[in-house]
Amino acid sequence: MANQQTALDIVFHALADPTRRAVIGRLLQGAAPVTRLAEPFTMGLPAFLKHLTVLETSGLIRSEKQGRVRTCRIDADRLAAAEGWLAEQRAIWQGRTDRLAAFVESQNSQEKAS
Amino acid sequence: MANQQTALDIVFHALADPTRRAVIGRLLQGAAPVTRLAEPFTMGLPAFLKHLTVLETSGLIRSEKQGRVRTCRIDADRLAAAEGWLAEQRAIWQGRTDRLAAFVESQNSQEKAS
Repeated sequence: MANQQTALDIVFHALADPTRRAVIGRLLQGAAPVTRLAEPFTMGLPAFLKHLTVLETSGLIRSEKQGRVRTCRIDADRLAAAEGWLAEQRAIWQGRTDRLAAFVESQNSQEKAS
Repeated sequence: MANQQTALDIVFHALADPTRRAVIGRLLQGAAPVTRLAEPFTMGLPAFLKHLTVLETSGLIRSEKQGRVRTCRIDADRLAAAEGWLAEQRAIWQGRTDRLAAFVESQNSQEKAS
């Protein structure tokens, strides 16, 4: 439980930045070398590499070096974990609003019957 | 688009903490006064109030003061926005793996036919 909490902390932290979300969006299309990933951004390479480190620490991406080229790929399990947590919360919320609607409806029926 | 990016930044940042996620979980059960929300946590009230400020700035919760009691409630739209972004990414990923599976299958069929 504690481990899962920590994993969610770092995954949500990793997602809290537009550059990092854009990199995830790009890698969902397929693996890519770091230099290609960095191209669309105006920031310097050291700043971009910091973002990649945050993503890799979170487990959202993995990277592998072959010769002088480091290639990144997505690890979709962590994205699924974050989505799973949010889906759980929505289910709780949905259950509450459904119960509330049922209660209001039952009150209306009672009023009509009396 | 830029505004939506910023909204996602602060929502994901707000979700990147176990205390804040626990408060959301509690508020999904129904509105609650700040003092009640703070009870399960061992941290001091000032530290807890900082977490509430982060949540309120993100739009995930709203609060209202009546007399001396401040009551918090969830605003589920922002949770839905975060879940929506993750669901979009999963759809992209799913589409890619489906196309890959179809490609592998077509290659196998060609090999059998030849």
